[in-house]
This record gives sequence, C-alpha cells and structure tokens, in this order.
Amino acid sequence: SNGGLAEIFTVFAKTPLRDEATGEVKDKITAFVVERAFGGVTHGPPEKKMGIRASNTAEVHFEGVRVPAENVLGAPGSGFKVAMNILNNGRFGMAAALAGTMRGLLAKAVDHAANRTQFGDKIHNFGAIQEKLAHMALLQYVTESMAYAISANMDRGAPDFQIEAAISKIFGSEAAWTVADECIQLLGGMGFMKEAGVERVMRDLRIFRIFEGTNDILRLFVALNGFQLLGIQLRGLQKALKQPLGNAGLLAGEAARRLRRKAGLGSGLSLREYVHPDLQESAHKTVQCLDLFAETADALLLKHGKKIVDEQFVLKRVADGAIDIYAMAVVLSRASRALSQGLPAAQHERLLCDTWCQEVS
Amino acid sequence: SNGGLAEIFTVFAKTPLRDEATGEVKDKITAFVVERAFGGVTHGPPEKKMGIRASNTAEVHFEGVRVPAENVLGAPGSGFKVAMNILNNGRFGMAAALAGTMRGLLAKAVDHAANRTQFGDKIHNFGAIQEKLAHMALLQYVTESMAYAISANMDRGAPDFQIEAAISKIFGSEAAWTVADECIQLLGGMGFMKEAGVERVMRDLRIFRIFEGTNDILRLFVALNGFQLLGIQLRGLQKALKQPLGNAGLLAGEAARRLRRKAGLGSGLSLREYVHPDLQESAHKTVQCLDLFAETADALLLKHGKKIVDEQFVLKRVADGAIDIYAMAVVLSRASRALSQGLPAAQHERLLCDTWCQEVS
Repeated sequence: SNGGLAEIFTVFAKTPLRDEATGEVKDKITAFVVERAFGGVTHGPPEKKMGIRASNTAEVHFEGVRVPAENVLGAPGSGFKVAMNILNNGRFGMAAALAGTMRGLLAKAVDHAANRTQFGDKIHNFGAIQEKLAHMALLQYVTESMAYAISANMDRGAPDFQIEAAISKIFGSEAAWTVADECIQLLGGMGFMKEAGVERVMRDLRIFRIFEGTNDILRLFVALNGFQLLGIQLRGLQKALKQPLGNAGLLAGEAARRLRRKAGLGSGLSLREYVHPDLQESAHKTVQCLDLFAETADALLLKHGKKIVDEQFVLKRVADGAIDIYAMAVVLSRASRALSQGLPAAQHERLLCDTWCQEVS
Repeated sequence: SNGGLAEIFTVFAKTPLRDEATGEVKDKITAFVVERAFGGVTHGPPEKKMGIRASNTAEVHFEGVRVPAENVLGAPGSGFKVAMNILNNGRFGMAAALAGTMRGLLAKAVDHAANRTQFGDKIHNFGAIQEKLAHMALLQYVTESMAYAISANMDRGAPDFQIEAAISKIFGSEAAWTVADECIQLLGGMGFMKEAGVERVMRDLRIFRIFEGTNDILRLFVALNGFQLLGIQLRGLQKALKQPLGNAGLLAGEAARRLRRKAGLGSGLSLREYVHPDLQESAHKTVQCLDLFAETADALLLKHGKKIVDEQFVLKRVADGAIDIYAMAVVLSRASRALSQGLPAAQHERLLCDTWCQEVS
C-alpha cells in the first residue's frame, strides 16, 4: 500500500542469523524501517485493482539499499512477530467501519424498496423484499455489536483482544459483502449501474475478506488459539490426575462437568443473572451452543492431539462455531443493556437478538 | 440491451383495449416491432455498468413514432405473454454457458494452487484450499449436469422445459458467482488485481442473478408453477372424493400414499432400476428428500390454499428445495450413465454425485 507515494517503508526481509546455541546460520525474517532517501528504492506503476482505487498499490524494488542498524524494527529475526502485531492491530476497528458501511447500504435499500413500484405495489410490501431487508439489518446489528464489545473491552484496558478482533474482522467483512450483494439484488438492474453507487462499494468491500490476514487464515488462527488454551487446560488436568490430592478442586469440577454431560445436563453454566429476563430463552440457547461447542472441541483435541494443526477442514468448522457463539454473546449483551435501560430501540433490539440466536442455534 | 446500436426494437407499451364482453376499456401491454427508420427514436448515452461492458445498454426514447398495425407482435394486449416467452427462451442455454465459465475459473484456481508456495508448501496441499477446489468442482459438475439434462430433453422434443430452465438459470448463476468469488479468494491479493482476469469475470457474472428474470422472481415462478400442478392434482382428488366409485384407482393410490406416510414409510417411489448399483445410496437419499418435499408441499397448499401466492417467505424455501432435488436428480442420472458406460471419469463422477447428495439431503 502507498508504494508509489511513501517516503518511509516498513520492509520485511530474510536475513541470515546465527543460532547462539547451535552455531547454525539460518535465514530469518527481520523488519526494517527504510527511507526512500537512502537511495536505490524504485517502484512500479500503480496496480489496477477491482476496487479501493483511491489507495495506491505498487511493487517496490530495492537495489543496494544500505539500512543503518538502528532502523531494525524490534530485534533481528523477529520480523514475523512484528508483522503479526501490526496485523493484530489493524483488525480491531474494522467491524466498526464495516458496520457503518452496512448502515449506508441498508438506508439505500430501504429507500429504494419504499419507492419502487412493481406488480402494482411498493416492493417493500413483498415478503421476499422484507426478508432481504430483515437479514441485512440483522447482519448490521451483529457486526455493530461486535465493534461495541471490542471497543468496550479495549477502553477497560483489556490487553488481550486478538481473537475477538479476528472474529469481528471475519464476520464484519463477510456480513458487509452479503449486505452489499443483497442491496444490488434488491435494486435489480439499477444496482448493476455505476450511477447507483452500490457496485463501487461492493468492489471496495471485496478486499476486506483478503487483507489484514485472509478470512481463511484468520479462521485457522481463531480455531488454533482456542485449541491452544484448551490444550493448556487439558494438560493441567493431566497433571492434576497424577497428583490427585493437590488439585482436588480442579478434578472435582471436571468430574462433575463430565458427569453432567453424560447425563445430557450441559455444563451447568448459566447466563441468567447477566441477561435481561426478556432474553432468557436466547441466553439459554447460547449456553446450549456453548456446551455443545466445548464438548466437540474437547473431543476433537483428544482425537487429533497436536496434529489438529493440519486438520484445516475441521478447524474451519470449529472457527465458524466460535464466530457464531461470539456473535450470540455480543448481541445478548447489547440487547440486554438496551432493555435494562429502556432505550427507545429496546424492543427492536430484542427481536434482532432473538432472531439471531434462533437462526444460529 | 443494444439500445444505442439497434435498428430494430422489440417494444412493450401499454395500449387501451376494449373488453369484448363488458365493453370496458383497460390499459394492457402490447408488444411491437419498431424500426429506427420510422423516425422519433432517440437514445441516451451508454450506461456505465459494473460489468458486461461490451454490451451496449442505453435508454431509448420514443416520440410520436407511428407503428404500422402489422408490426404488432402476437395479438394486441398479449405483450406480457410475449415477454414471458422471450424470457423463457433465454434461460435454457445459460447453465451451459455458466458451466463453461466455471471450468475456466477452476483451471485458473487449480493452476495457482499447484504453483503458489506459502508456509513452505504448495498451497494445494492445505486442507482449506483442497476444500475450496472440491466445492468449486462440485458446483461446476452440478451446473453442467443441468445443462446436459435440459439439452437432452429439448433434443428429444420435450415442449415443456420452463421450470427446469428457470432452475438451471438460478442454480448456474449462483454457482458461477460462488466459484468466481472463491477463485479470487484462493488467489488472494492477486485475485483482486485486474491483471489476473478474475475480477472482470466476477463483475460480468453479477448480472446473471438479475437478468432474464431475477433469481428472486424465478424462485417464486418455480414454486408457484409447482403448486399449480399440485393444486390441479388435489382438485382432481377432491372431485374423486365426491364420486368415489368413478375414481377408485386415484383414491386407492392416494390412500395408500397417506397411510405409508403416516407409518413413516415414504411414498414407495424407487429409483432402483434407473440408477447404477453403485449409486443406490444416493438414489435412496434423493427419494427420501422427494418424499419429504412432497409431503411438505401438500401440507403448505392445504394450509394456505390460493393465498400461498402471497407467502413469499415460504415460496422461496419451497423453490430452494425443488432446486436441490432437481440437482440431485441430474447428477444421479449423469453419474449413472458414466458408471454404466465405464467412462474414464466414472469414479470421479460417482464421488461428486455422492458428495452432492450427501450435502443436500
């Protein structure tokens, strides 16, 4: 990005590095801050893209560029970590931006549906159109709720929000794509015209499922991070089994959990006290999904062990489950707040929350 | 289409028509063949579109154009029927064209996956990429099978293929859209560049879900046509109930059907003798889906009666069911033929057929 304009570049390059322990020399990725003024930096023409054409994308070539040692970003060889931190940081605001885009698309679709006459009636009176609008509104609400939840956590100073940010990037970019696509469909032939302004939004949105980590890679990230935590838990459990007297609490808890599962009783987890009384049914559905998800994840980890890393078909489905459940949690939380505070949109939010939990569970 | 270039236009206009029976005058749609040479025909600039830019789309204005009586297409007032016939005729070849497009996209994706290295391995070795390619191949196979089935029926002289053509237009346009979208995703950032040539295909494909009848309207068409046939059957049944002696066969058949259903036995329909032995499980699944579908459709028609016409939420789901089952039937038929004739791709086709029937049922 901005390869044709930038004066300062963050560059990742392979550099030979000597392993202190073994003495072996290996290529590792290092991050550098390179200034155009160093000389030897040239660039190709701006790439022609499907969308985001206001952003300059160009190949950058480096030839004999001398970079001073103090321009190494982080430590030599730690470039991958630097890159991941940049990407992690790029994701947290995306759901907010995408929720705003969806709001604009929804307004355009509603306006068209309320004014366009077909078969002798305004088309917003037809069930097929109403279903489209409802689905669009639902996706917008869920994405916006994710943005609120992540912002609130960050405002509270939570240091650890990578998984939530990744989930909201995946969900938001796919939701916005669907909303733009449905907006075009609702506008029919007019939506295909540049004049309506929707096809441009759609072309711009296509890259959101690719950049800042493709949604495919991020799904693996979400699933594997979850399994890592679960793995630590299970290892703690294995340890506890070896020294049963020292960890009676942990073991008793786990034994009870497994017994309840066998009896089809669920984990005993309840959201009753956190959720507004009007949303208890949705809260119950969320807990049921969570129990089923936890049970499945446990079983998968026991089955595949560390090799779960290679089971991408499975990992994708685990990530999809995690995304859906996180979405349930954030809409429950937001709609609960609206109902508790008696906000004007509370009943509307309740409907959106209940519909989402019904659809997903 | 071609408004800026055409010399001859098919024009649909409202004309006042006197009802012979009541003497009332009403506006009805009539189709005309209008030649630019008649004078008074002008057009606007070519519309700027998301795709299919090689096709000239322009507004055409008619002012004081005199059209001779022999240029009326069909009878005065029958314009809607003329338009529907044109649309019906436009759909039968679309699955074939789209299957070809998908074949090209698949080749591009496979080529990229076999050559692109990430994380130290060619990406076609990763499960997430393999799943994408398999899904693309499946959608291509189903669409192509629909094209073959419709062509075969037309070659045999079947006059009635509107529903099948509509289904294949819906399925093919959505399948091709998904395949193009997945091809871009698989190519990552490169897929977003004009240079790769995929984003243009995707922009061109967007209109296929809109033109020749939007997929939304076509779903209503598919469902309502089905219900019309079912309605005729049910009316026949009601008649038979009034004169039970004259229609013993019909009644006995229906009674047996309902009894079997109540006993959870299905309709007794079997595809055993039509389908290759290796595909019996898929054939069985198809029959199960068909039974469930028929039962549901019956129940819906009994519940809503003629008002089913306004239940678009329901109609969409009925159409989706019909589309999936038709897709099962065509792949069963094609894979059966491949196995029976021992074609080189027979085992591959068997896998595609079994996977489709498994996914859908």
